Amino acid sequence: MTELFVKTLREDPADAEVASHKLLVRAGYIRRQAPGIYAWLPLGLKVLAKIEAIVRQEQERIGGQEVRFPGLLPAEPYQASGRWRDYGPNMFRLRDRKQSDLLLAPTHEEVFTLLVKDMCSSYKDLPLMLYQVQTKYRDEARPRAGLLRGREFIMKDAYSFDADDSGLDRSYDAQRQAYRRTFDRLGLDTVTVSAMSGAMGGSRSEEFLYPTPIGEDTYVRSPGGYAANVEAVTTVAPPPGPVEGLPPARVEPTPGATTIETLVDAANRLQPRPDGRAWTAADTLKNVVVALVEPSGERRVVVLGLPGDREVDLARLAAAVFPAEVEPAGDDDFARHPELVRGYIGPQILGVNAVGAAGAAGAVGAVGAAGAVGVAGAVGAAGAVGVAGAGRVPVPYFLDPRIVAGTAWVTGANAVDQHVFGLVAGRDFAAAGQDGQAVIDAAAVRAGDPAPDGSGPLEMARGIELGHIFQLGRKYAQALDLKVLDQNGKLVTVTMGSYGIGVTRSLAALAEKYHDDRGLIWPVHVAPAHVHVVATGKEPGIFAAAAGLAADLEEAGLDVLYDDRPRESAGVKFADAELLGVPYILVVGRGLAEGRVELRDRQAAVAIELPVDAAVAHVAAVVGAALAESENPQSG
Amino acid sequence: MTELFVKTLREDPADAEVASHKLLVRAGYIRRQAPGIYAWLPLGLKVLAKIEAIVRQEQERIGGQEVRFPGLLPAEPYQASGRWRDYGPNMFRLRDRKQSDLLLAPTHEEVFTLLVKDMCSSYKDLPLMLYQVQTKYRDEARPRAGLLRGREFIMKDAYSFDADDSGLDRSYDAQRQAYRRTFDRLGLDTVTVSAMSGAMGGSRSEEFLYPTPIGEDTYVRSPGGYAANVEAVTTVAPPPGPVEGLPPARVEPTPGATTIETLVDAANRLQPRPDGRAWTAADTLKNVVVALVEPSGERRVVVLGLPGDREVDLARLAAAVFPAEVEPAGDDDFARHPELVRGYIGPQILGVNAVGAAGAAGAVGAVGAAGAVGVAGAVGAAGAVGVAGAGRVPVPYFLDPRIVAGTAWVTGANAVDQHVFGLVAGRDFAAAGQDGQAVIDAAAVRAGDPAPDGSGPLEMARGIELGHIFQLGRKYAQALDLKVLDQNGKLVTVTMGSYGIGVTRSLAALAEKYHDDRGLIWPVHVAPAHVHVVATGKEPGIFAAAAGLAADLEEAGLDVLYDDRPRESAGVKFADAELLGVPYILVVGRGLAEGRVELRDRQAAVAIELPVDAAVAHVAAVVGAALAESENPQSG
Repeated sequence: MTELFVKTLREDPADAEVASHKLLVRAGYIRRQAPGIYAWLPLGLKVLAKIEAIVRQEQERIGGQEVRFPGLLPAEPYQASGRWRDYGPNMFRLRDRKQSDLLLAPTHEEVFTLLVKDMCSSYKDLPLMLYQVQTKYRDEARPRAGLLRGREFIMKDAYSFDADDSGLDRSYDAQRQAYRRTFDRLGLDTVTVSAMSGAMGGSRSEEFLYPTPIGEDTYVRSPGGYAANVEAVTTVAPPPGPVEGLPPARVEPTPGATTIETLVDAANRLQPRPDGRAWTAADTLKNVVVALVEPSGERRVVVLGLPGDREVDLARLAAAVFPAEVEPAGDDDFARHPELVRGYIGPQILGVNAVGAAGAAGAVGAVGAAGAVGVAGAVGAAGAVGVAGAGRVPVPYFLDPRIVAGTAWVTGANAVDQHVFGLVAGRDFAAAGQDGQAVIDAAAVRAGDPAPDGSGPLEMARGIELGHIFQLGRKYAQALDLKVLDQNGKLVTVTMGSYGIGVTRSLAALAEKYHDDRGLIWPVHVAPAHVHVVATGKEPGIFAAAAGLAADLEEAGLDVLYDDRPRESAGVKFADAELLGVPYILVVGRGLAEGRVELRDRQAAVAIELPVDAAVAHVAAVVGAALAESENPQSG
Repeated sequence: MTELFVKTLREDPADAEVASHKLLVRAGYIRRQAPGIYAWLPLGLKVLAKIEAIVRQEQERIGGQEVRFPGLLPAEPYQASGRWRDYGPNMFRLRDRKQSDLLLAPTHEEVFTLLVKDMCSSYKDLPLMLYQVQTKYRDEARPRAGLLRGREFIMKDAYSFDADDSGLDRSYDAQRQAYRRTFDRLGLDTVTVSAMSGAMGGSRSEEFLYPTPIGEDTYVRSPGGYAANVEAVTTVAPPPGPVEGLPPARVEPTPGATTIETLVDAANRLQPRPDGRAWTAADTLKNVVVALVEPSGERRVVVLGLPGDREVDLARLAAAVFPAEVEPAGDDDFARHPELVRGYIGPQILGVNAVGAAGAAGAVGAVGAAGAVGVAGAVGAAGAVGVAGAGRVPVPYFLDPRIVAGTAWVTGANAVDQHVFGLVAGRDFAAAGQDGQAVIDAAAVRAGDPAPDGSGPLEMARGIELGHIFQLGRKYAQALDLKVLDQNGKLVTVTMGSYGIGVTRSLAALAEKYHDDRGLIWPVHVAPAHVHVVATGKEPGIFAAAAGLAADLEEAGLDVLYDDRPRESAGVKFADAELLGVPYILVVGRGLAEGRVELRDRQAAVAIELPVDAAVAHVAAVVGAALAESENPQSG
């Protein structure tokens, strides 16, 4: 400790919110260089190396071969795959002195595809599993939580190459097993959930989440075994019903009812239901205006209609509209669309089914013709064309899957102080989407919602995404023309998988899981040292004995940290040892006079006395047993 | 080999000129991604890991502690040190989505300085030696020779921090020893030469060069032990002599003599020396026009005067004018400076000492007043001020150190078809430099030139720069305010050293040294495998025996590559094995019937027969001995 490059801090860093961030900085494992960009100090690097070793071993076990790509790559392959565009502002781009476009790679699908194209020509060269442990870059809008969401981070990314779909299934399953073993060995119990593929493309994808309330990912699980990232949950829509015989829609005055809450209140006050049931938020159709920003920078204002008791989940919306990014609609957006009457937005009313309240019918007509939302081709009525003809781009209107034909709603009438009651989907209004899309499934999922596979009501939880595996299929192989000859001498397009583990993020998750209010408590298999020898007191004899024990422990093959500071108090030394988080602390102090030392187990929070002569053998046995256990975890 | 991700090529890659580049690509160690940017394949990564391990061990041996900084860094620290500007176009720069300036770090002095400032406050925290093995970026104008000059490369960079100069001397010497041991262990005999500090700044610096004719660095050595990079060689100037009594200068017609060669010819023909000695190039003063481009982009035309028998060495000139970059002067430059009369450029002639030839005196006067080069303040004559006043920026004029007072020269008279004879330095002309600088020592060094320390004539050689160590002194600590309290409680500025090893470049140097015309021949301590087992023939018994030997060799702790390809011919297998370069090849073939296998030693180019039962023990012993020798090299 007199020589180790470490400095412990008693105060949390100002920008830290989560335990891993606070403790890794305070214990001198990492130091911030820029938002989301960290330097690794000696203790941090030791933990990182042990995690990387476990990740590598499990990749090698399933036949993975290690390679390493540059972080700096030419733009062309990413232009060919479309990701140069799709990644939008999340990718760091730069130009070299010759004005060639380069990027700092967020993942490496394209160049792995090109490498295999260069090296392989026959089905006999497959299956192939390649991986790397490498520094990745992502220009996050909001880097946060220390290592949990950084702009420079270490990933293990693997790529499988197979000649056919069953081969891809086998490769995918092998990685799935490797991931379970990896996280088990690391000591991180993870939940495997269905996920969205996002920028990666491809069909099936699953995430490995470490469950924790501070996680950024929300996921759901059902009693019947369904588990999915909330972004991937498909809403169970009710069956459509008949529209015949339903009462006509009626526009009614609802002065000042610009929110769902005030609308429900006004409806119950001014338009009580004949059967006496109170109106609730679930009876209303909420229309939410957002702006979608395409990777090209083009900004589109759209409206989402969803049940009034549901909020829009921005993560689900982002996944649904990818590669566009979602931004709140601003005053400028509303100024460009005066047909959006804030607080009273509703779908365009089709035909002449709506009966106006006294004195309001004329207004409804006018709104229907000039101000209604949702006017695209097949669905739009004649009035809608007029709107576009007047120089305005019609605002697309998307619906939540629950808004099926035959459901009746209370919603805005596109005029101030007016709502329409009993507006029936499939009769009075419909979606008016874009590019063939009418539904956007972006309402927040709630505990108790049904699982899409019928396996029961969902419960909600949060987690940190540690791994993500994808069946990419042929997206990249097609874009970059990766083909091999099959058994019959015919060229076939290769099918691929992609498999990522956040290595630095896994380190942070370990710090989240293994700590207490005094500091870190590393599991022995990733700890920067196995045992922390602390000499207390001032007597030279104590330091000599402690130095001897430290040397003997190293001789026995253990990683040892020895606190040889001559002038620090025992209290400071214990506080530092507890903050640093080495799992076993061997205290050499006053007891030495009676031939005894003390072994503290941070995790179990117990201390035992040991005869000094037996200490090395005992500690070596304890550490050896813990290491052996971690190599063969129960569930692996 | 049936599973290994490797593909050997029979043809050299089109862009490859040097052996390491050709062989590393052909043997499937690396693949090009962009100019100067490579991906590492499995075999390459194994060699890289072994080199890195040796580099790390030698850093740890002298107390180095490993950390790791990001590759992507904020601009501010580099702006504070001035290197944001000084690196010019050699540094990759980019902006993030918030328009903050970032860079891909070429080296990390600034952030190491800031880290130590954050962590250390007292002389008791020093001395401190930190290092990292990390990916670096440099936007080279001319990436070439594969790994030898790349734009992304791996460096070990270390930084020392000391409270006083004697501490820095000790840290520097420790690294100097560590470097000698590192290169000795790697198997790379290096020459340690004095060098220029360039962008790094600081005082003393030395390079470790691997001598090879394909090296980019030229260095010199003397019989007395002097060794320096040619950029760092100081020219030994003759002593100045008296100017009194020397004949006056005379302008003479030299029609068409626009080169040194034609000038010498014209001089001997038209102006033979009274004593009959022939004029030679060494009697002429050559005036070379170049453009210096500052990091800011500002372009300055300057003229260098040097003996006509010397060329300008662009590397020496670049080092002398750093941080400016050197470009050839173009037609635009000459157009902006009509006073530079191509082929007849000379220094401004001071006073009225030059006597014109019949009919030419008038012309000389005019040239001296309006067209002469070199007109800055103290030196410039009255006519020069007139030039600047006429709206022209005077062109600075620098001299080679050999142009001392009392030397007489034949040189241009700044008028077409005119040269001046007997122009005496210190009487008729002088340098007219800039910013206090009058001399630029950029003439090419030649074999036979005297060593600056008087240790004899220099001989020339070329080498690859594998390491560079710097005494930085207080440049960075001052710029970034790194101070500690000394023994007396007084704040002192820390003094630093910086120490780099090109890790990927060392790998390329090993490939340069250890190969023959059939392929690579790795030393056993960096080889991707210790032994390459080759099964030849078709008989299953041979493959079974070879597989058994391969397994037993692995069991014995050796890294084994096993060529189990069932259908390749023995010839193809041997050719591949020789190209891949594993140092020992164990052939299992026809001899197996008589209980014998063959062990080939690639380096010694000998083969011995072994009883199959003794093969594993023998190979293990041979490999073990070679490994042991490499850990304790002779000169280490």
